[in-house]
Amino acid sequence: MADPLPQGAVIGILGGGQLGRMLALAAARLGLRCHIYDPTPGCPAAQVSDLATHAAFDDVDALRDFAKQVDVVTYEFENIPTASLDAIEAIAPIRPGRTALATSQDRLTEKAFLNGCGLKTAPFAQVDDLDGLNAAITRIGTPAILKTRRLGYDGKGQARLSDPADAENVLDAMHGAPAILEGFVPFSHEVSVIAARDPGGSVAAFDPGENVHQDGILRTTTVPARLTAAQRTDAVLIAANILNTLDYIGVIGVELFVTENGLIVNEFAPRVHNSGHWTQNGCVIDQFEQHIRAIAGWPLGDGKRHSNVEMTNLIGDGIAAIPKLAGENAGLHLYGKAEARPGRKMGHVNRIIGTVQ
Amino acid sequence: MADPLPQGAVIGILGGGQLGRMLALAAARLGLRCHIYDPTPGCPAAQVSDLATHAAFDDVDALRDFAKQVDVVTYEFENIPTASLDAIEAIAPIRPGRTALATSQDRLTEKAFLNGCGLKTAPFAQVDDLDGLNAAITRIGTPAILKTRRLGYDGKGQARLSDPADAENVLDAMHGAPAILEGFVPFSHEVSVIAARDPGGSVAAFDPGENVHQDGILRTTTVPARLTAAQRTDAVLIAANILNTLDYIGVIGVELFVTENGLIVNEFAPRVHNSGHWTQNGCVIDQFEQHIRAIAGWPLGDGKRHSNVEMTNLIGDGIAAIPKLAGENAGLHLYGKAEARPGRKMGHVNRIIGTVQ
Repeated sequence: MADPLPQGAVIGILGGGQLGRMLALAAARLGLRCHIYDPTPGCPAAQVSDLATHAAFDDVDALRDFAKQVDVVTYEFENIPTASLDAIEAIAPIRPGRTALATSQDRLTEKAFLNGCGLKTAPFAQVDDLDGLNAAITRIGTPAILKTRRLGYDGKGQARLSDPADAENVLDAMHGAPAILEGFVPFSHEVSVIAARDPGGSVAAFDPGENVHQDGILRTTTVPARLTAAQRTDAVLIAANILNTLDYIGVIGVELFVTENGLIVNEFAPRVHNSGHWTQNGCVIDQFEQHIRAIAGWPLGDGKRHSNVEMTNLIGDGIAAIPKLAGENAGLHLYGKAEARPGRKMGHVNRIIGTVQ
Repeated sequence: MADPLPQGAVIGILGGGQLGRMLALAAARLGLRCHIYDPTPGCPAAQVSDLATHAAFDDVDALRDFAKQVDVVTYEFENIPTASLDAIEAIAPIRPGRTALATSQDRLTEKAFLNGCGLKTAPFAQVDDLDGLNAAITRIGTPAILKTRRLGYDGKGQARLSDPADAENVLDAMHGAPAILEGFVPFSHEVSVIAARDPGGSVAAFDPGENVHQDGILRTTTVPARLTAAQRTDAVLIAANILNTLDYIGVIGVELFVTENGLIVNEFAPRVHNSGHWTQNGCVIDQFEQHIRAIAGWPLGDGKRHSNVEMTNLIGDGIAAIPKLAGENAGLHLYGKAEARPGRKMGHVNRIIGTVQ
């Protein structure tokens, strides 16, 4: 795939949730079509695409058929079975590539990779059993957090360890899954950088946003983040370091802790990221279009910000506020989910809080 | 339809071209679904919607089935057969309503309506035959333009009359269709106002844009337009006058000539308008979303402009410039049309030419 994808080319998207939906809308702006692969008919992304396959993520035959009908495959979530990726990759390119996926799918691999890039992380240790956990506690201390190595998101698969005596209980909460103990890092706030890299190796980063979480779920991202000029540069260099080391194609989201000793990498996601939704109303080219441009071999936009934005997630019943929010002339982005369940991301609002000169 | 349409409600769109496509993308941002009605499978709008009916615009049975599956019907073009509108309206509301459509479908009715609103137009006269044309020439003079009363767009169905001796030839060019003779108005430039009205009667207008045509097709719209503060206000008042008189719901595009004697109304289109495409990158809420909000009974956005924009249509082979344009960090909007024919609108580019303080 050396040439840019032409008008009408088809992008395959694994996962039909809100990220897939907004990727499909961005692809549409560029005259590209999307084929959504998701088990659920009527899922948010399939609503905005005329091409969809509804089958399980481990249905290798369906995945092969899907791969034959598209020009490139991307994904909105990381936990795709290896056999499924193998089946697709034999037919169509997957972007971002396997290395990025494999690295981010496992918290232990990810942290080791980041340290290998020369980047700072929280102290961590592999935990396979109680002996391992006790050894990790001795080295890292408490408080700390025990996390499953795989399949965690939005605060799930995590347990806080305040006292070494709680080790056994906290380990039980992992239900036998391989785990990692992470030390606490004293930080003042969390920021994230959304950046993109194209097949030719060009990198473009959006300005870092400042994130506020509640109950393990992102609530708001505000841009610009509280950072010194040096920290701002450092954040972008960190993202570029990761992108280049992984020979990455597409958009990445990198979460960083701001500490007295500089920026510490929390984790990265090899995809568009909730903390980058502000770009839809803060930039001419948003993170979704940037991702599509990268994987389609188009030139990246430069990611320049024209407005300051506060992004607020609408979670569960938060969607009841829509009529009021709609009157505020804020950028409203709703995901077409009929049922508002507690903790479910239903949409988000981008409030313009200033213009960039 | 007193309450705002809920998440997942379905908007029916007659016409599946680029305007329908961009309406569908805007509806998607608000969590609404679209059902596209267009004879051509794979048309631009159907590519971004999971619901589509492909049948003729005079297929009353298909239109009835379509109307039963949607909550409200809107359209991207004006020349819908009356019987088709009757069939739909018996089942689902049509927005904007029939009066607006009937008025704008006929240039003679439209001009008479505008004068009835107290608005200035070019001098005009009904022309049904050669005697009528000669009488019209006597009254209006030359140069003038003879236009078919119905079905003209992008400069089609028009002939310039420079000399009274040409009357017969020019009339022949109408192929017997009922016509209207319009006098020339000396104007310095053309502007247009895009405005919206909701079911409660609230009106919101975008800033006027300045239009440049070539070969009868819009080439560029630049915002802000060259207008005095008084003209700017007048332009918005003209649009509001038309909207209120028609008890209109949705977005309207009003073309105005700037003359030494003030603003003269050229024509209006009861739909989103090519000269409003700049709003996609100049405003938080663009003309497409504003139209969807209005017809769905949602609160209108205020239409505030955050950036100055020059919109350029990509016509025919103009699409070959995409790789270069993509590198400019301009808002690129492509319509998914595989084949670039001469004169065919393939997409448009919104260049940011300044920030509004």
